[in-house]
Amino acid sequence: MTEAPRSLITIDNLSNGEINHLFEIAGEMAADIPGQYGIARGKIMASLFFEPSTRTRLSFETAMLRLGGSVITASDVNATSMAKGESIADMARVVGSYADIIVIRHPWEGAAKIVADYSGKPVINAGDGGHEHPTQTLCDLFTLKQERHTIRGLRIALWGDLKYGRTIHSLAYALARFGATIHFRPAPGLEIPEYVLRKLTTEYKGELKRREGLQTVEEGTLPLDAIYVTPRSPHQLAMMPDVSLEVELEKSVDALYVTRMQRERMKANGSGSYPIVDKKMLKAKEFEKTLVMHPLPRVNELAQEMDGDRRAGYFKQAAWGVPVRMALLTYLLGIKQPKITEEADSLYQHRDYPVYTGDSVKCPNAMCVTSQESEKYLAHEFSIIKMEPLILRCVYCEHEVRPPFIASSEWHEGRTDTKKYHDSNSHWIKEIKPENLIIFGNESEAKTRGFKPSHYTGKVEG
Amino acid sequence: MTEAPRSLITIDNLSNGEINHLFEIAGEMAADIPGQYGIARGKIMASLFFEPSTRTRLSFETAMLRLGGSVITASDVNATSMAKGESIADMARVVGSYADIIVIRHPWEGAAKIVADYSGKPVINAGDGGHEHPTQTLCDLFTLKQERHTIRGLRIALWGDLKYGRTIHSLAYALARFGATIHFRPAPGLEIPEYVLRKLTTEYKGELKRREGLQTVEEGTLPLDAIYVTPRSPHQLAMMPDVSLEVELEKSVDALYVTRMQRERMKANGSGSYPIVDKKMLKAKEFEKTLVMHPLPRVNELAQEMDGDRRAGYFKQAAWGVPVRMALLTYLLGIKQPKITEEADSLYQHRDYPVYTGDSVKCPNAMCVTSQESEKYLAHEFSIIKMEPLILRCVYCEHEVRPPFIASSEWHEGRTDTKKYHDSNSHWIKEIKPENLIIFGNESEAKTRGFKPSHYTGKVEG
Amino acid sequence: MTEAPRSLITIDNLSNGEINHLFEIAGEMAADIPGQYGIARGKIMASLFFEPSTRTRLSFETAMLRLGGSVITASDVNATSMAKGESIADMARVVGSYADIIVIRHPWEGAAKIVADYSGKPVINAGDGGHEHPTQTLCDLFTLKQERHTIRGLRIALWGDLKYGRTIHSLAYALARFGATIHFRPAPGLEIPEYVLRKLTTEYKGELKRREGLQTVEEGTLPLDAIYVTPRSPHQLAMMPDVSLEVELEKSVDALYVTRMQRERMKANGSGSYPIVDKKMLKAKEFEKTLVMHPLPRVNELAQEMDGDRRAGYFKQAAWGVPVRMALLTYLLGIKQPKITEEADSLYQHRDYPVYTGDSVKCPNAMCVTSQESEKYLAHEFSIIKMEPLILRCVYCEHEVRPPFIASSEWHEGRTDTKKYHDSNSHWIKEIKPENLIIFGNESEAKTRGFKPSHYTGKVEG
Repeated sequence: MTEAPRSLITIDNLSNGEINHLFEIAGEMAADIPGQYGIARGKIMASLFFEPSTRTRLSFETAMLRLGGSVITASDVNATSMAKGESIADMARVVGSYADIIVIRHPWEGAAKIVADYSGKPVINAGDGGHEHPTQTLCDLFTLKQERHTIRGLRIALWGDLKYGRTIHSLAYALARFGATIHFRPAPGLEIPEYVLRKLTTEYKGELKRREGLQTVEEGTLPLDAIYVTPRSPHQLAMMPDVSLEVELEKSVDALYVTRMQRERMKANGSGSYPIVDKKMLKAKEFEKTLVMHPLPRVNELAQEMDGDRRAGYFKQAAWGVPVRMALLTYLLGIKQPKITEEADSLYQHRDYPVYTGDSVKCPNAMCVTSQESEKYLAHEFSIIKMEPLILRCVYCEHEVRPPFIASSEWHEGRTDTKKYHDSNSHWIKEIKPENLIIFGNESEAKTRGFKPSHYTGKVEG
Repeated sequence: MTEAPRSLITIDNLSNGEINHLFEIAGEMAADIPGQYGIARGKIMASLFFEPSTRTRLSFETAMLRLGGSVITASDVNATSMAKGESIADMARVVGSYADIIVIRHPWEGAAKIVADYSGKPVINAGDGGHEHPTQTLCDLFTLKQERHTIRGLRIALWGDLKYGRTIHSLAYALARFGATIHFRPAPGLEIPEYVLRKLTTEYKGELKRREGLQTVEEGTLPLDAIYVTPRSPHQLAMMPDVSLEVELEKSVDALYVTRMQRERMKANGSGSYPIVDKKMLKAKEFEKTLVMHPLPRVNELAQEMDGDRRAGYFKQAAWGVPVRMALLTYLLGIKQPKITEEADSLYQHRDYPVYTGDSVKCPNAMCVTSQESEKYLAHEFSIIKMEPLILRCVYCEHEVRPPFIASSEWHEGRTDTKKYHDSNSHWIKEIKPENLIIFGNESEAKTRGFKPSHYTGKVEG
Repeated sequence: MTEAPRSLITIDNLSNGEINHLFEIAGEMAADIPGQYGIARGKIMASLFFEPSTRTRLSFETAMLRLGGSVITASDVNATSMAKGESIADMARVVGSYADIIVIRHPWEGAAKIVADYSGKPVINAGDGGHEHPTQTLCDLFTLKQERHTIRGLRIALWGDLKYGRTIHSLAYALARFGATIHFRPAPGLEIPEYVLRKLTTEYKGELKRREGLQTVEEGTLPLDAIYVTPRSPHQLAMMPDVSLEVELEKSVDALYVTRMQRERMKANGSGSYPIVDKKMLKAKEFEKTLVMHPLPRVNELAQEMDGDRRAGYFKQAAWGVPVRMALLTYLLGIKQPKITEEADSLYQHRDYPVYTGDSVKCPNAMCVTSQESEKYLAHEFSIIKMEPLILRCVYCEHEVRPPFIASSEWHEGRTDTKKYHDSNSHWIKEIKPENLIIFGNESEAKTRGFKPSHYTGKVEG
């Protein structure tokens, strides 16, 4: 029996069992919306939108009002004006003294975590920059469950911009956890980032099959770039199905998740090949029974003619947002107690990464909340996700860093001659325990702190 | 027994009987505002203001809250940013899946109709560009009824800007339906548009008497331009009173409806004669007992010194907005059932105009919703309101078009030699049935489609 | 037994007894927030913010919602757009016909008073330019009472920008009324205005001791500029304690009220000496048990490291805002009846100043509401707070004016030879009764109105 999560900052804050239970509640609520009125009587939700998002904001506010709760809203604030003055932590503490639960959207990645850390109240991340948007993922999963009954074993194609869409990354992790097979079909130049693929294979139990070179495909469609396959059963890794990309391409797609085409990004990538999903394209046999999904708002990537098609799932997706958020609100407010069903987290393999905190490594992501607020009160903090080569992951925005120089605090206790620093690619990394790791952003920093260059650095060797 | 209207897009969506019944409900509600709390318990109103209008928005929101309902608001959205991305239809579908009723103000004419067409929920038009603002008209009528007991037979002077004020056009139609005599007293250059006058005489049962040339009038007042007179009894058109403008001018005015002076427009019209309505002007005998009305906000056209005058009705007008909107909300939400009293629609003569849809005619109004969104999903659509000469009316914004060239689909079935097009002013128009009408925006378009010029076109004849 | 005040425009609208009673209610409410839900059922609060202030707005809205009332909000309006069109009075009348109580923030000083004068509903001033912000003062006093049990006899240091902070001026008056000793410790160039000091000594019963010249002080702190001491007992003015600044400086400070550093103003004053309040500074013995207060938001003037310190009171201050505003709302809505306890207003000495209204004196404050709206409907109006020299105080913004020329209406009734005007500094002022006072903005104005220069004007004498 897990304790109820205080906040939903990333989709990983909820276990599979909790998500299943949440969906049970959401389903019951959807069947009797008027019957839920009064459940959150007297409770106040703060709806803080530091970026325009009428749709998501109204969905949350509708959910709270349907429960009979009240809402205070700040949607006129822009982060720029806030940046001049008050810290997110201060804002969080003050609003935390007003409201019972806080929903926040903010352009800075990791901002929602700060609000959760400082407000003393349950917090829901309604989108923090390019990082996460976990309630969108919940709506996506709920729609799949409603329309296809289960997620395990489904073939889901992610389509279009797999690089920038924050909803895509959260969704990929969630599909991996629930045992779906994922088809990656990116527009050229908008492939899913490497760190997402790495996380899928190191922290989830599936396997990735990549295609060698982008094949030419018929006009009007996007090529299959890679497939992520999950084991048939969580406890038997050997039961990984033997999947061939060529065979897989022949099979029918259960859901096609179309993403918004952002014209600016298409131009930047020098490519115009973002085919429009329309009836003609969906005539292909693989799409005969495909549920067409889209997080909305759409621009031109999904034809209006699909709206009346029985395969169109995107307006349902938006509509389910209300009961899903109602369920989540009652859950985090402690009105509904978590009752974890079985079929646990088994496709997710939790890793307890060691943590690195130090002045010499800064998160390279300019939109990370630590880049914006670290001078005031925040320390940079990283998970050490790999030693060979050394890869750190920012605990706020999850961007990766590969620091250039390292040393160990153990080697040179009191002894000057062994105070040496090494290239982070050198074999010395093997000898360092994470808890002794020292990192330098450049050589002069190492020298300033009294370290000498090692003969065994990668540079020297090379 | 008419069915409850799903939406209020133009004032014509409500019959006279329905309006009377609505006013009964509004009167009862006004007498016991606290007693209405809870009537709309659990219902959610979406308040979508894509143009600033604090007054109207707060009036609607107050109405819903007085009923014990809840409100979700988007007032920070500007249409420009929306134009870049999502269609009004998509927005309507999503918000329709959140709220129980939608109130929308939008700069594009016809936008509210789109929301009604796509949202699946009752929609109230709170102003769509220069088109309509029907709840303002309801408040105006209700104020007249409260202050003068009946509208039939009242003399109402419309004053100032009769050209651009959307409230004036709706009000004129409504006054015509309820049997008032309308005095048009425009500022020079701001006369009421011809198409409004045409509609008053073709779709309502009254008669128009126009003054020949603008007479010189005393300084500080505006000349009487035209009078619209309604029959004494709806069923006896012969009972049209014999009205002389000169005699009419001597008679007392029951209500003076002052409109906002928009400085930019005054300059554009090269005129400064927008006299201020003040105590001095209202000393004239005709205004002795006149109710002074104004939709507010006012600028300088109505003197502050009138505020304490017993004839001032404009703050009451604003205050009645709340019970009138409360009644309307309960009505459209189905909480109060329509109970149509007699004294029906008789001064309105409904016309079932044939409809024309085709690529070759586009609405000429740049602010029409079809001008903005037709590429995405909307077809241009017109009522054929007259054949000789041919006049079409856009079903979204009601602007008129007079297309230059026509043909008939009947004439040339399979026979090339009769595929001829004609000037729309030619006598050939008589021979074409509306269901066979083909329209061309210009001659080359006609030729491209395989039509030859007729010898009988107006052009050739002239 | 005083009647309940209709509005809270300045902190002086509430007597000490009322404030004490309000705090009793606030304390009871704070102890059982959920128990208050429903108290204001069916009531509507209009929240009109013509200047951005998310914190204050959300605090008021939370308070109303915690009482089970409803809120209509306008926070997207900027005063500039309003200035083009509608008057504050019109807006007040309209919103007054919607809501049961109005909370307003506006950049123009005196705007809240206009809303109270015209809306017909209770009004709460949530900040009118640089004038007042009385509910902030209530929160400050409540925090002091909660943390130090009483205000009488406390030593409160006001720190930093004492010139522009509207919260500081209201707070100083309130502390004077409740019998605190005030230490003024301004940043150089940001001293408390003379007119505030004058009001403290003429309208309150305390005494001011000023320091001769700014002493050099240790780096990292601000010098004590002046001390305001209140009598031990309100009824015995002789019981004024004998306070020496040197001795006073040795004594411990009960509360340190830090104000926001506004960089723009620091630069304008050519000074960088705005020391940061941090643990190091607060190591001084005088601050050992000091409650650190701040109206928030803070920028850099108060170190984040203080947040965990037991002396930090500023987040509590923000949190108390909700119950204090809940109590105030129920009080002004008439839900809770005022029950005035003893310990009355005795340290405030109410003065019934004569009033001067006339075209020739205008308020010199460009942000005064009369500077913005007087042409439309407002008359300039002043309290004559002193005759020798002549000092007027604007009844809207409380700024002072010293008019240059005067005359008496009594001297020259019908007699042309005695129609003389005088320099306002001349001894003639003694001979004029306030009710006969005539003021001229300049000599030509006096001459135009038929007055001749006096030989006894200050100018001629000098």
